[in-house]
Amino acid sequence: MNTSTAILQVAMILIAARVFGELASYLHIPAVIGEIFAGVILGPSLIGYIQPEGLIQVLAEIGIILLLFQVGLETDIGELARSGYKSTIVAIGGFVLPFVACFALSRYAFGLDLLVSLMAAGTMTATSIGITMRTLTDLGRAQSREGRIVLGAAVLDDILGVLLLAILYDFMSSGSIDIAGAWRILLFMLAFFLVAPTVAKSISHVIRSREQNSDIPGMVPTTIVSMVLFLAWLSHELGIPELLGGFATGLALSRRFFLPFGVALQAQPEFSNRVQEQMKPIIQLFTPIFFATVGLSLDLSSLDWSSPFFWIFSTSMAVVAIATKIAGAFGLRESLARRAIVGMSMVPRGEVGLVFAELGRQTGLFDPQTFAAMVIVIAYSTIFTPVWLRHFYRRFGHLLEE
Amino acid sequence: MNTSTAILQVAMILIAARVFGELASYLHIPAVIGEIFAGVILGPSLIGYIQPEGLIQVLAEIGIILLLFQVGLETDIGELARSGYKSTIVAIGGFVLPFVACFALSRYAFGLDLLVSLMAAGTMTATSIGITMRTLTDLGRAQSREGRIVLGAAVLDDILGVLLLAILYDFMSSGSIDIAGAWRILLFMLAFFLVAPTVAKSISHVIRSREQNSDIPGMVPTTIVSMVLFLAWLSHELGIPELLGGFATGLALSRRFFLPFGVALQAQPEFSNRVQEQMKPIIQLFTPIFFATVGLSLDLSSLDWSSPFFWIFSTSMAVVAIATKIAGAFGLRESLARRAIVGMSMVPRGEVGLVFAELGRQTGLFDPQTFAAMVIVIAYSTIFTPVWLRHFYRRFGHLLEE
Repeated sequence: MNTSTAILQVAMILIAARVFGELASYLHIPAVIGEIFAGVILGPSLIGYIQPEGLIQVLAEIGIILLLFQVGLETDIGELARSGYKSTIVAIGGFVLPFVACFALSRYAFGLDLLVSLMAAGTMTATSIGITMRTLTDLGRAQSREGRIVLGAAVLDDILGVLLLAILYDFMSSGSIDIAGAWRILLFMLAFFLVAPTVAKSISHVIRSREQNSDIPGMVPTTIVSMVLFLAWLSHELGIPELLGGFATGLALSRRFFLPFGVALQAQPEFSNRVQEQMKPIIQLFTPIFFATVGLSLDLSSLDWSSPFFWIFSTSMAVVAIATKIAGAFGLRESLARRAIVGMSMVPRGEVGLVFAELGRQTGLFDPQTFAAMVIVIAYSTIFTPVWLRHFYRRFGHLLEE
Repeated sequence: MNTSTAILQVAMILIAARVFGELASYLHIPAVIGEIFAGVILGPSLIGYIQPEGLIQVLAEIGIILLLFQVGLETDIGELARSGYKSTIVAIGGFVLPFVACFALSRYAFGLDLLVSLMAAGTMTATSIGITMRTLTDLGRAQSREGRIVLGAAVLDDILGVLLLAILYDFMSSGSIDIAGAWRILLFMLAFFLVAPTVAKSISHVIRSREQNSDIPGMVPTTIVSMVLFLAWLSHELGIPELLGGFATGLALSRRFFLPFGVALQAQPEFSNRVQEQMKPIIQLFTPIFFATVGLSLDLSSLDWSSPFFWIFSTSMAVVAIATKIAGAFGLRESLARRAIVGMSMVPRGEVGLVFAELGRQTGLFDPQTFAAMVIVIAYSTIFTPVWLRHFYRRFGHLLEE
């Protein structure tokens, strides 16, 4: 593909995501659905003009990393810590319940193989931080009490999902479960979340002091973006999802960041504001590319729409996966409305689910029908959750006033 | 190459360009040289970690398109039109003189083939708008009288260069010169520069009115970037360099834009300001990637440094190419200092020169030594001009007060 075509594709994705986002917004549907739909139209499902690969995939990955950077930037780490206990309950509930129920369904109701069932259950576990947080942001609820619980739970969920994936992957290749390997990954994650924000915070002090002496414009965009991308790469190297690197960097640069053990790096609220202001257009530019790419990846044309197995399996999987994710939040000691909204926010599966499904397909574990069913359940949970959430907020939002 | 590696490469380019840019600035060398040098280090010349291809090339292309967009955005079209006559003189002088002199040198002093000589002469004709305008911007002289003359001349020069390339390319493949084809390309360019800004201006009115009703953030970055990229693609399709599409869009959105024939679209200074403010971080993010990629493309390790032909040919070419470019500005009726500075500003060859050289190499017209000589002359003119300009301004800048 030559440079000129690539440039046209980027332009097409941006404009289609904007047009369908506006259209969705006009129809009172969250904009993110419109952006995903733009990808469905441009991608293999319909026109087949753009494939979710190469340049587009890298830009999309940068988009999700930057979105999580923004989520981190706007996070009040004290509040997150205070909701940590609740988030942990939701994360474990929303991880264990779907995993057990979906495994049982695949293994005993549909008689799938052990490994296939484990993989299918794994596909249904991890909540999509990106879609959930974008929806809550669009609704103006990202920084609400339930928003913080969901964010914490989704982050933990992603970590659990990736841990599970690593274990299953090991299981598939070696035939045995490697507990030591799983512990190693968990340890890396903990270390990363202690070290990365500290490093990012220190670097940001250097950036800030250099910025005042620099004659060359553009210090903030270039250095912040490269730091975010570098930590994202590093997290990937450590076996942690890249987007968590973006999140950790954002946390470090947020207005209310403090370091553990009271390390003396003062807050820089005025620098945080400048970072936020200059990064905003860049984040807004890249984020829609990610959501359109989710749409590109949902190849609806590859599905065999006439297979009864496909319909029964995917419908029952969807019901179980959605019901158990919502049920996972009912261990909380909160009002019914808030438990319901937290549970619903946890429903969308996205990136990590697609990674599971894709790996299942590549290893031959999922036959085309099973793969299709997985994709359709992910699509369903991804596409409709924002609609429910919006309706629920409109109807019961008054019950959630703090 | 996987996504994670690509992300690391982007991060490395951004950080290296910034570090060497700052270093150059510290040494009182223009920052753009530092950014090119960062590319030389990361690229095949030295470490060989990043190749100027694929993702990086697309990002670089977006960078130069956006830089030209910014140049257009800051251009006062009335002033440009008033300097049009002077720019034309400089462009023609700076095109014809190097072409004739370099052709004569290659053909009669070094006895190269007719086509090789034509191609070598062509390589030496087109001024690099990007490097010139970036240098003048760094020096705060982009909007000065000489800055406008140089911009107009560089744009015309690029057009003439591309026209020449199209003719030579035709000549190489058919063995005859196709005058009709050359006229067609010229016509496309004229039509594009009349139509593109008008279209862009009309679209910007739509964007502005939609922006006020939209609930989704990020209207300006996504729509403006996609419009710029789309017009860049369109210009490429018409056989015009992509970066001119960016320039035309920038012109249309500039504060002082007016349409020919007095078409009634009011100026939108407040919208122009918002566009400029929100686009700035995006432009600042992408531009260094372009300059670093120029450095990546200068593969100094492929040169045979011991060949006498290489040294004599490249040195005499460099002297002739630089002297004739400066001489091209002496047809102006301006002070000696201003004529000198305009001439010196026209010296850097860049993108278009590299396209000529690359095409010569691919068609087998340039043997490795000739190709290397071309690259080294381009590198020399590119790398040292900003240094001369800066010194000249420091020494004689007081003679240029308007």
